[in-house]
Amino acid sequence: MPLWLHQRALLTPERIAYETENSRLTFHELDQSARQLACILSSKGIAEGSHIAVLQENTLNFVRTQHALMYLHAICVPLNLRLAKRELSFQLADCAAGFLIADLATYEKAQQANTNCQLLTIEQLLEEATDTLPQPVLQREISLNDPCTIIYTSGTTGRPKGVVLTYGSHWWNANASLINLGLRETDEWLCCVPLFHVSGLSLLIKNVIYGMPVFLCRHFHAADVHQQILAGKVSHISLVASMLQRVLDDAGAARFPDTFRCVLLGGGPVPPVLLKRCLERRIPVYQTYGMTETASQCVTLPPEYMQAKAGSAGKALFPLQIQIDSGTRPAEAGEPGEILVKGPTVFSHYLNREDATRDAFTDGWFRTGDIGYLDADGFLFVLDRRKDLIISGGENIYPAEVEAVLRLDTNVTGAGVIGIPDSAWGQKPIAFVTVHRSDAFDADDLIALCRSHLAHYKVPKQVILCDELPENAAHKLLRRKLYERWLQENPSNPL
Amino acid sequence: MPLWLHQRALLTPERIAYETENSRLTFHELDQSARQLACILSSKGIAEGSHIAVLQENTLNFVRTQHALMYLHAICVPLNLRLAKRELSFQLADCAAGFLIADLATYEKAQQANTNCQLLTIEQLLEEATDTLPQPVLQREISLNDPCTIIYTSGTTGRPKGVVLTYGSHWWNANASLINLGLRETDEWLCCVPLFHVSGLSLLIKNVIYGMPVFLCRHFHAADVHQQILAGKVSHISLVASMLQRVLDDAGAARFPDTFRCVLLGGGPVPPVLLKRCLERRIPVYQTYGMTETASQCVTLPPEYMQAKAGSAGKALFPLQIQIDSGTRPAEAGEPGEILVKGPTVFSHYLNREDATRDAFTDGWFRTGDIGYLDADGFLFVLDRRKDLIISGGENIYPAEVEAVLRLDTNVTGAGVIGIPDSAWGQKPIAFVTVHRSDAFDADDLIALCRSHLAHYKVPKQVILCDELPENAAHKLLRRKLYERWLQENPSNPL
Repeated sequence: MPLWLHQRALLTPERIAYETENSRLTFHELDQSARQLACILSSKGIAEGSHIAVLQENTLNFVRTQHALMYLHAICVPLNLRLAKRELSFQLADCAAGFLIADLATYEKAQQANTNCQLLTIEQLLEEATDTLPQPVLQREISLNDPCTIIYTSGTTGRPKGVVLTYGSHWWNANASLINLGLRETDEWLCCVPLFHVSGLSLLIKNVIYGMPVFLCRHFHAADVHQQILAGKVSHISLVASMLQRVLDDAGAARFPDTFRCVLLGGGPVPPVLLKRCLERRIPVYQTYGMTETASQCVTLPPEYMQAKAGSAGKALFPLQIQIDSGTRPAEAGEPGEILVKGPTVFSHYLNREDATRDAFTDGWFRTGDIGYLDADGFLFVLDRRKDLIISGGENIYPAEVEAVLRLDTNVTGAGVIGIPDSAWGQKPIAFVTVHRSDAFDADDLIALCRSHLAHYKVPKQVILCDELPENAAHKLLRRKLYERWLQENPSNPL
Repeated sequence: MPLWLHQRALLTPERIAYETENSRLTFHELDQSARQLACILSSKGIAEGSHIAVLQENTLNFVRTQHALMYLHAICVPLNLRLAKRELSFQLADCAAGFLIADLATYEKAQQANTNCQLLTIEQLLEEATDTLPQPVLQREISLNDPCTIIYTSGTTGRPKGVVLTYGSHWWNANASLINLGLRETDEWLCCVPLFHVSGLSLLIKNVIYGMPVFLCRHFHAADVHQQILAGKVSHISLVASMLQRVLDDAGAARFPDTFRCVLLGGGPVPPVLLKRCLERRIPVYQTYGMTETASQCVTLPPEYMQAKAGSAGKALFPLQIQIDSGTRPAEAGEPGEILVKGPTVFSHYLNREDATRDAFTDGWFRTGDIGYLDADGFLFVLDRRKDLIISGGENIYPAEVEAVLRLDTNVTGAGVIGIPDSAWGQKPIAFVTVHRSDAFDADDLIALCRSHLAHYKVPKQVILCDELPENAAHKLLRRKLYERWLQENPSNPL
């Protein structure tokens, strides 16, 4: 298959590829700058198959970097901007990145986290002259089986795993979504989700495959997003529930234009009260279920079922299949079990983690670890996120990862982290700990410890001292019991 | 990947799948009847991998048959309704079809042509009770590499070749077209091209993948087509130039509704005068270039270039690549050569024809045999159809095939067939012959001979006696010289 940006620039060179608050770029222009950057990167030693870490804000430079790497068949490892130094260092070492391409805004953080790889800044790279550089061999084709990006996701053990997504994973996701949502020549997708997440990255891919303009926001500001929607050019937007809520708060009673035809709502469960607001305002919400391993959404609920199937994540996208494993699979309708996914968008493997990869698949089905059921009409209802996953503002927090940090304090003997409801972010993490000496316990110290090791969003908002943590017979922590305990003591649940 | 109809019926069971003049069918209903038919076919002995010939008119029964065969992983061989008995017999024998499924309208023809395979009629099959039948294993998944259909195309030697199209060829064609044309929830495609051609068959495939209703016409009647367009529900139609001309003749000055957004115009070159009429009437025409071997269109010209790039077939669909081989390929812009196509829609192989398959590919590129060039902007211009191919009303006529029949007459020493312009059909075939004894020459006898061996559309409209046929030094017939000779004698070229 032809390389996507190369083909797109050949087919529709003059079409707008990207808009930002203060610029516009055609596919031809994007292609030219990506080729130029590829030349420069090649001259630095970046070659086919290299792992290249990218720590950049949501700007056109990120887009150029990703496409330049594709032109070199190098593998992009986008890093989460919110990660703490130690987390970044782990990921850089784990993927053995030869280069880290930062931008001016992230340079300091990159420098602190970086240990072994060559640090470049995109702004400087783009200023280099290319006239004197040797012309590298720019790839013009791709193979769908080749790795394209590696995105880290925190695992259940607290040790993040690099999810290897092939060109095929991305291609099939874009196509599956196309069949589901359709495409008009006037479509334009607003991207205010991070490009380092699979949700944002999937828009970067759709952009070139569909030939559809993307309005790219550097940061998420509810007022700006709302203004863009009202301006009438934006047709689609990807959001998580907490963002949508802020956009609606900002929007007041203003009516969204008819050309605005899709809010693709991912990143965890959606509060019913939010859906009700959207229904009242006739905002077309497509609830989705997906994860990095499925290259973004794999199950979607169209707006016509928002009421009839409230609480459902919908049905599989066309090339995908969902099955419930309740011990004897496939489960009966209504019978809960682990959600399995099969299809060409599913990731290839976890980097350097043969064991985890093996555990993740049964007979070609990917085991999500999430619990859910299919109703008699085939709609998926997600009951429980995998391994007590906490989702806060669309970011995943694995309790085990936070607990491991708390246990670094020598006074701490045990730790349990749960998510509690939060009106702004959906959920927020809090921690329960047991200690050797209660007189040496200081909640603020523990929070500071977490802050130094973890991305801000993962840091417990509260650390509660307790006598013992609930366990099962095998001394496995029962986080659900912790939640029940919390609920009893905080009956005025805000949601 | 899930089997397409199975998945579609799971995702959107209540959506309309087909409309005809007097019926409507949801995807659930289509699925039910296809499954039932699969049961019955299985009980007759049709199993995975069997070649099953289908000789049926453009009705829902054809659609049911194709899907039932997919449920059994049997391979459908759709036969051209216009073929003569001998042509049908050859194809049935060549693909070693175990069964021939006809309908009441085609039964007699099927009976005459059939020699070795079991003849079934779809109307009788559908009346059989299924309650007492053993439940066969209906397939629920497909592999894109598996063969799906075999469609015969006459070769340059006059001996038709079975083009083996995989599920992947069809899937990629549907997806490539989706990226190109977009999709709206209100789209509906009118199908008045034969389902036994790849053009009609591709609509049967798009229908289940897109979840888009198809309005199916048993026969092409310009007035009916025009009426359906004016009724405002139809958004797309596939036509060849001669059909479009008749629709426009019938339409008079009536304005087509805005919801009608695409005439996909295939089957050979389009007369400029016809394009001009469409431009004046603001009818959005997408000229296409494609063939059975590429599973329908592979190059398309969007309407915005109808004027600027008049005469061009357009650019490759997204997953495909076009290259011109002028001896040293790729050729320069403007330099003519053989048109090569590469990409996942390209057919797998010619059935039982290793030699022809080998000759058809160079380094993974399919050699179309057609001559053309790419201009500086990358637009394809087709100069000459492969091996003097004649295209009459969208049907391909290979001169060599007709010439071989003419030479069956013992008095005929040489024959040359060419296409001359025809206002209704684009082209029509005429023949030049040399004979032993001119007193024994009878043009009507030769036409009758052709009629008994060939589909009607292939029969020369005129047979002209001449002293000698133009040849090159290697005694190869120069059909272009024949055409020049004809043009000199008929200066009032109707087009």
